[in-house]
Amino acid sequence: MIRVGIVGYGNLGKSLEALIDLEENMELVRIFTRRDPDSIKNERMESLKNILDYKDRIDVMVLALGSATDIPEMGLEIAKNFNTVDSFDTHAKIPEYFSEMDRISKENNLVSFISTGWDPGLFSLNRMVAESILPRGNTNTFWGKGVSQGHSDAVRRIAGVKNAVQYTLPKQEIIEDIYNIERDLKSYEAHSREVFIVAEEGVDKEAIRREIVTMKNYFDEYETTVHFISQEEFEREHMVMPHGGHVIRVGETPNGKEVYKFTLELDSNPDFTASVNLACIRACQKFFENNSFGTHTVLDTPPIYYTDLNSQNAIEKYL
Amino acid sequence: MIRVGIVGYGNLGKSLEALIDLEENMELVRIFTRRDPDSIKNERMESLKNILDYKDRIDVMVLALGSATDIPEMGLEIAKNFNTVDSFDTHAKIPEYFSEMDRISKENNLVSFISTGWDPGLFSLNRMVAESILPRGNTNTFWGKGVSQGHSDAVRRIAGVKNAVQYTLPKQEIIEDIYNIERDLKSYEAHSREVFIVAEEGVDKEAIRREIVTMKNYFDEYETTVHFISQEEFEREHMVMPHGGHVIRVGETPNGKEVYKFTLELDSNPDFTASVNLACIRACQKFFENNSFGTHTVLDTPPIYYTDLNSQNAIEKYL
Repeated sequence: MIRVGIVGYGNLGKSLEALIDLEENMELVRIFTRRDPDSIKNERMESLKNILDYKDRIDVMVLALGSATDIPEMGLEIAKNFNTVDSFDTHAKIPEYFSEMDRISKENNLVSFISTGWDPGLFSLNRMVAESILPRGNTNTFWGKGVSQGHSDAVRRIAGVKNAVQYTLPKQEIIEDIYNIERDLKSYEAHSREVFIVAEEGVDKEAIRREIVTMKNYFDEYETTVHFISQEEFEREHMVMPHGGHVIRVGETPNGKEVYKFTLELDSNPDFTASVNLACIRACQKFFENNSFGTHTVLDTPPIYYTDLNSQNAIEKYL
Repeated sequence: MIRVGIVGYGNLGKSLEALIDLEENMELVRIFTRRDPDSIKNERMESLKNILDYKDRIDVMVLALGSATDIPEMGLEIAKNFNTVDSFDTHAKIPEYFSEMDRISKENNLVSFISTGWDPGLFSLNRMVAESILPRGNTNTFWGKGVSQGHSDAVRRIAGVKNAVQYTLPKQEIIEDIYNIERDLKSYEAHSREVFIVAEEGVDKEAIRREIVTMKNYFDEYETTVHFISQEEFEREHMVMPHGGHVIRVGETPNGKEVYKFTLELDSNPDFTASVNLACIRACQKFFENNSFGTHTVLDTPPIYYTDLNSQNAIEKYL
């Protein structure tokens, strides 16, 4: 039985809570929050201030926190006292975050499993495995259809926009023709963007549209469509969090081309990220039991660590 | 530099030879054959009888041999003196083969990496990872479009059949509707079979067709189509070895369904199997250097072992 704690109670924290309760071999001990725990109706809620009281009562702590500032600050602190699993996803800062966490975990004889989820995470794993098997070729990653939180925020900051959501969509015609595409595409070549807006009354919608499609770094290079909809339609159609995507490698071998393709189609992005977190909790615990202290990622984890099965049962069932 | 030997010189052996010659960090030392090596025009050919002369000159031996009798007999013998990589694919016998190879490799402080390729191999890996992440749901494996050697042989044994090839095809309508299929399908529900035959002159084609579609264990449960074609068309259209397939897991989570899908579309089945073998040669060598003697499979191998990159470079490039 792995005793688990969750830090953070947003969408990811709630998915983790629901999923851990379904696991026979895990027990959810506490959910830690920076808010007043009494303000949330949940008997397992605990103030983050008291986290050290649980040092001997929790095996693995999952950091269900944002990557912008929360994980880099709080992760390093929590990793001094607990084994951790996180979904740190600022790709450019992962090497630096890795080395800091690695140092702290090693100093304390603990394990941290960082940057789990699907990208970084399963997509990273598949990019590496695909290129190891097919060293000559091209890899393209397609994201979507899914909500981009950053782009949605950027649109919401425009004057006259009451509510907005931005979907990133992979270009289907490119995916279908991937066998014939012989280079790594730029993101704006492989994706389009679709924005749904609830505007305030009487605003100049064309001006808002123009501001969006010309927005530097966010939209200007992309094929972007803007739709103005009612608040009712927004609430009815755009409150779910689907996501997904593809990693596709087309490799050249002496007798032809070999296509390696990994695809996710997710109804709930937080549920799937939490599901990957759970597999990584099992792996984190195994690394810890094997005294393999320091930081681990999907790249160096023996896949059997994700299961509850022993080696013999896994071979019989899966090989 | 990893010094590699190949045992066997059929389709897989030839693909291995071509691919190893493209690798900067591998050297192909010898190809061992049971035939008279002088009968094959290839300066690296060597009689299998002399294999022990290469004990200190080869790091990893790839067994490019059949699974029916060759690998179970010769693999166990070769594993006494060499690190080995094989593609043993008789699923039901893998646990027994694993334990015999594991004992021999451990006794000799060597490593054997068994049952690599795509199924068993990458498909096994994806079935295990998918079910670890999404423990509630259904997994279906689809093979094809691809040639089944066993079924092609069975058809060729029918009187009046001059030449034949059998393709296994996944049912596209089931793959497209997989989100709504809530169980593990039987193979005959998920696949159809297509047979192309060159018949001898004057034979009763309808009798041949009937014999095929009613053949027990091979065709009787499947939707099977039989085509009679000319020798010219056979040589023009049916001499390549494409293959591929899908592993699809549809998992249930609190807020919906999550689809995990792994797909291969291969122009050349031997080239791709050989490509996986090469990645496993790198892994085999790393297990050996880490004194991790015994038998390994894709299920317990840290994915980073498949690459030539070190940890830091892999994290920067892929995570």
